Amino acid sequence: MFSRIAVFGLGLLGGSICRGLRSISHQGEIIAFARDPGKLGDALRGRVIDRVISMEAARLDGIDLLIICTPVFHSIELLNTILNDSGLGATSLVIDVGSVKSPIVEAALANPRADRFVGCHPMAGSERTGYGASRHDLYNQAPVIITPHARNARGDIEKVAGFWRSLGAVVVEAEASFHDSVVARTSHLPHLLACSAMHAIGGLAESMGPGLTNFMGNGFRDVTRIAAGSPEMWADIFAANGTNIAAAARDTIKIIEDVIARIEANGDPRMIADFFDRARELRKGI
Amino acid sequence: MFSRIAVFGLGLLGGSICRGLRSISHQGEIIAFARDPGKLGDALRGRVIDRVISMEAARLDGIDLLIICTPVFHSIELLNTILNDSGLGATSLVIDVGSVKSPIVEAALANPRADRFVGCHPMAGSERTGYGASRHDLYNQAPVIITPHARNARGDIEKVAGFWRSLGAVVVEAEASFHDSVVARTSHLPHLLACSAMHAIGGLAESMGPGLTNFMGNGFRDVTRIAAGSPEMWADIFAANGTNIAAAARDTIKIIEDVIARIEANGDPRMIADFFDRARELRKGI
Repeated sequence: MFSRIAVFGLGLLGGSICRGLRSISHQGEIIAFARDPGKLGDALRGRVIDRVISMEAARLDGIDLLIICTPVFHSIELLNTILNDSGLGATSLVIDVGSVKSPIVEAALANPRADRFVGCHPMAGSERTGYGASRHDLYNQAPVIITPHARNARGDIEKVAGFWRSLGAVVVEAEASFHDSVVARTSHLPHLLACSAMHAIGGLAESMGPGLTNFMGNGFRDVTRIAAGSPEMWADIFAANGTNIAAAARDTIKIIEDVIARIEANGDPRMIADFFDRARELRKGI
Repeated sequence: MFSRIAVFGLGLLGGSICRGLRSISHQGEIIAFARDPGKLGDALRGRVIDRVISMEAARLDGIDLLIICTPVFHSIELLNTILNDSGLGATSLVIDVGSVKSPIVEAALANPRADRFVGCHPMAGSERTGYGASRHDLYNQAPVIITPHARNARGDIEKVAGFWRSLGAVVVEAEASFHDSVVARTSHLPHLLACSAMHAIGGLAESMGPGLTNFMGNGFRDVTRIAAGSPEMWADIFAANGTNIAAAARDTIKIIEDVIARIEANGDPRMIADFFDRARELRKGI
């Protein structure tokens, strides 16, 4: 396994990796590179990390695994900086945890040292963000999608897969472009719908104030929970995966328009029931 | 309080009312009227109800409170039958628990004994259905919306409010038509979006099979949880509240189209971030 690991961005995902490593008694050193090292006092005192170093002072020599846990566009910048760094070891590996994989894999492939990068996407987000929300068991039983590219060696993919499995994750592989088209529907579209549900009550929230919450059940809270997620992170994701998300959104508009047509056809419940039947069948399958 | 209570439909909502009454040591008798009395053996043996009687043999004499817990259109039929029954006591009250209130309140108002009916909507649903899912604390802290109409006496409204409060509920009042326009957005639209999210992955579910679940996180599961709800119940709700739901759905299509336009404008994350910012602000407020 990797003896010295460095994390860029000690938030929910990065923090949970470090906590997870401690809980499995990882013997190596864990370093955090941070824009604001002063904010990582808790992680240092709790021995979740061994050292914290500012981004500017980051030296890559001797680090076996570099984990980029920042929003998508910042990750692409960081990846280029890292791959261009002469301190990056010949057998060191760089991974990320971003929700969109094609842009970062393409950025890697444009670099002579592309073989050092393996794209990863743990399906382990939350509407809670930041180090304070991190947990040692976040990756336990969570799927992690690895997106191998043309310059990756099989052995490196296996090393990265082993790393995630050591944290309890279930590893699957998918091509980056396929991954992006699928998560547009399994992750990005649900986020759009959750936020749209909030926007749809915006007028009522203004006219009714806090009394509106009396008209909400657990269903509303479930559907909209993820709308509390980081706007910056999600804006990056929507910009980076725009084509797939726009296609998924247009399909969803057609689905909704079809329901409206059924409602307005004659109000016969049987006209609408098959829409709900199909949704329930699909939901039971997951 | 009411000394003899009868429930029509011992599912999640009706069953939870009976369990709740037992947990607060209600002293009166609890009767269940059922289409298929043989199915209520568990409730009888568990002393959640005292007696079960077939719908055909239902006699209303001596019952203080009749609670209709069936899908909307069946509730309207039942309400008419009950209000036309000469056995209905002069001071007995009839309530329901349906998600749409205008059609049932209108049905009541068309009846000479409209004053006996008080429309109610507990915001306490679940994707789980049936008596097996019922709980003694379902109404604890749950909002219950009472929709008074022109023929209701204030004293009767207060009696019904007191009944719900005895189960731990928070009671609010709203006009039926206002209620229906609000829940179209806080309950019915979220259900439409959850089901639409399932339909949007229908093609992937067919092509990828069970492997698709590896691309799902907790966000997807939260957003789509309610899609597992009863298709029959939801078809009734959509037929009964069609105008409001169609309006809410059309507004949502505009919201989604606006996001697509922002995505396709130039891919600048700042163009999209304010959509997520607003959604998060609204979500924080609930």
